[in-house]
Amino acid sequence: VAPASLDVAGSPGSPGRLIETDALVIGAGPVGLWQVFQLGLQGISAQVIDALPVPGGQCAQLYADKPIYDIPGLPVCSGRELVDRLLQQTRPIAPVFHLGQTVATLQAQDDGRFAVTTSTGQQWLARCVFIAAGVGAFLPRPLNLPEAERHQGRQLFYQAPPTGLAGQQVVVVGGDDAALQAVITLATLAAPARPASVLLLHRRAALDAEPALLQQWQALLSQGSARFEVGQIVALESSAAPGAPLVALQVVGADGAQRRLPVDSLLVLLGLSPKLGPVAQWGLALQRRQLLVDAAHFETSTPGIYAVGDVVSYPGKKKLILCGFHEATMAAFAALQRLRPDEPTLLQYTTTSTRLQQRLGVVADTTPATAEPGPGD
Amino acid sequence: VAPASLDVAGSPGSPGRLIETDALVIGAGPVGLWQVFQLGLQGISAQVIDALPVPGGQCAQLYADKPIYDIPGLPVCSGRELVDRLLQQTRPIAPVFHLGQTVATLQAQDDGRFAVTTSTGQQWLARCVFIAAGVGAFLPRPLNLPEAERHQGRQLFYQAPPTGLAGQQVVVVGGDDAALQAVITLATLAAPARPASVLLLHRRAALDAEPALLQQWQALLSQGSARFEVGQIVALESSAAPGAPLVALQVVGADGAQRRLPVDSLLVLLGLSPKLGPVAQWGLALQRRQLLVDAAHFETSTPGIYAVGDVVSYPGKKKLILCGFHEATMAAFAALQRLRPDEPTLLQYTTTSTRLQQRLGVVADTTPATAEPGPGD
Repeated sequence: VAPASLDVAGSPGSPGRLIETDALVIGAGPVGLWQVFQLGLQGISAQVIDALPVPGGQCAQLYADKPIYDIPGLPVCSGRELVDRLLQQTRPIAPVFHLGQTVATLQAQDDGRFAVTTSTGQQWLARCVFIAAGVGAFLPRPLNLPEAERHQGRQLFYQAPPTGLAGQQVVVVGGDDAALQAVITLATLAAPARPASVLLLHRRAALDAEPALLQQWQALLSQGSARFEVGQIVALESSAAPGAPLVALQVVGADGAQRRLPVDSLLVLLGLSPKLGPVAQWGLALQRRQLLVDAAHFETSTPGIYAVGDVVSYPGKKKLILCGFHEATMAAFAALQRLRPDEPTLLQYTTTSTRLQQRLGVVADTTPATAEPGPGD
Repeated sequence: VAPASLDVAGSPGSPGRLIETDALVIGAGPVGLWQVFQLGLQGISAQVIDALPVPGGQCAQLYADKPIYDIPGLPVCSGRELVDRLLQQTRPIAPVFHLGQTVATLQAQDDGRFAVTTSTGQQWLARCVFIAAGVGAFLPRPLNLPEAERHQGRQLFYQAPPTGLAGQQVVVVGGDDAALQAVITLATLAAPARPASVLLLHRRAALDAEPALLQQWQALLSQGSARFEVGQIVALESSAAPGAPLVALQVVGADGAQRRLPVDSLLVLLGLSPKLGPVAQWGLALQRRQLLVDAAHFETSTPGIYAVGDVVSYPGKKKLILCGFHEATMAAFAALQRLRPDEPTLLQYTTTSTRLQQRLGVVADTTPATAEPGPGD
């Protein structure tokens, strides 16, 4: 990582002020949340970034309702329950979440801090960075056509229905809950806001959605409020008008025949796909797309940047949540030593340490706000 | 560890038959229980030894009712609750517990297995041993007098009241729940079984026991059914009769004056004290009484003997329960490689693996009992 400078005053039009922090955690999955908790126990407050609009990462996205059996002390819990429990546990630590944004750049500064920016333009100066990015940021799976990018944000959208589709021919691509929910929302809008037509396009006839949504969907189909086509988009057709707007989709059906579907707005809801993204370009030592760390401090090849959870590799590494909990704990101790080198890294227990219990809000904090309490209790 | 031979048929008078096992876990604290769980997930059934009469170790002994705040996903739970949760989680694995016994000997055999015996004479031949002994076996804190050992088991006892104390002068030493409970039990026995006198001896006037016990104790005191003395035993007085039986205690009170307390039976209930015991003599590499392990396999200096939890040392080691969970998990993977070198160590997830779910009993096991299922699901 080459040292570089950053406009600490914020560039014009940047929506976020510059935030200075001791710890910046990238990833709000279970391990990122536990990183925040362990930092909090060490008296280090953290800022957390995640690509998703809610905390929980893979756990909340891929197995929200599926059972996990190997979290110690929880004989069975769903991904969502685990995330909820960790959020509850982390609450006294009061981390600041910055959701729905991905890290764009990270650059080491001359003063040893790291300048970090995200896709929303938010900027940080962090003394330590913790990468708990799992298999990467969960981003919408894009439409894999070269001309897609040109229409994105104007006629092609990767999120739940935008407003302003009144009277339009809308095509929703996808076959899961999110796609069906979008169709239902659009097709049941009151008259002035309602699109002229709503068509669901999916690569096969079978949809993978909740029974309640499938039932509403069937009702809309029988009423003629929505239509369904099986097929895959092979090309986007633009008109010769100024700006070359999207006018139709070229679609190949199961029969191999190509059809033309007129479209004003295209909603692509093909699910989320993890993407390691710029992390891979930060000059940190990698091995098969995993960040190399040492098993004592969980520090990457750049001192001050730690990495934990599924994104890391070290001898014996197992991609299990409970191992990530250990890794985040060790990284928090290592960071304490970096941030407060003069403070003895005394191992304290939440069961007996008044200091830790104050940080958890379970006993009253009687220390003056301006003075750091001594290491003993 | 020098190879040695063991009478695999069992020595005469040995209470236990010889048990052959793939995995022997020493210590049934939280980390020992998690070791059993993780071995079970790997399809390895385990035998578990603990010095205490119940599983739970330090967690159950030292902070059964105290809150723990840093188990991931459990914002707060008592030591007892954590143990109960782990026991419930471990149930499908069906480990065999051998409680109330301490490991006496461990010797490597020529065939690579380990011969282990405990204080009750039980014998094992284990292919892998997992030391999850924490700070050691929790054994009754002994009366620190040279002549104490000679009376032990005849007139001096380290456990709850033995039978056959009718008509005797009984002295109970201690000031906690266990000591008070013993006094109450003895002083409220029906007439023929009741001791002639029950005296509680404690080093200070304040007792550290539950309010309900203190209330019963006060009632016995006012009725004259029990007596109380503050003082410490400085000598045990024996008579000149055959066998030199114990006849009195020499006690120094808070005033510094020495008194003589006649006694027939002495119950010493001074709490439990951890003792690493013979583990330290097995020739395993130690550092400041911790077993040295590598952070990838958690193997000691003797291949096939793993160690996890508070008993181990490795770079960065933190004595936290959640770190022990990670260590036990890693050791289970390492042991699988030792026990089944031909089986690919494929990381499977409890959320998605039918094989793991069969082992947990959450889906029916449809594989024939004689055939080991393939690694894929």
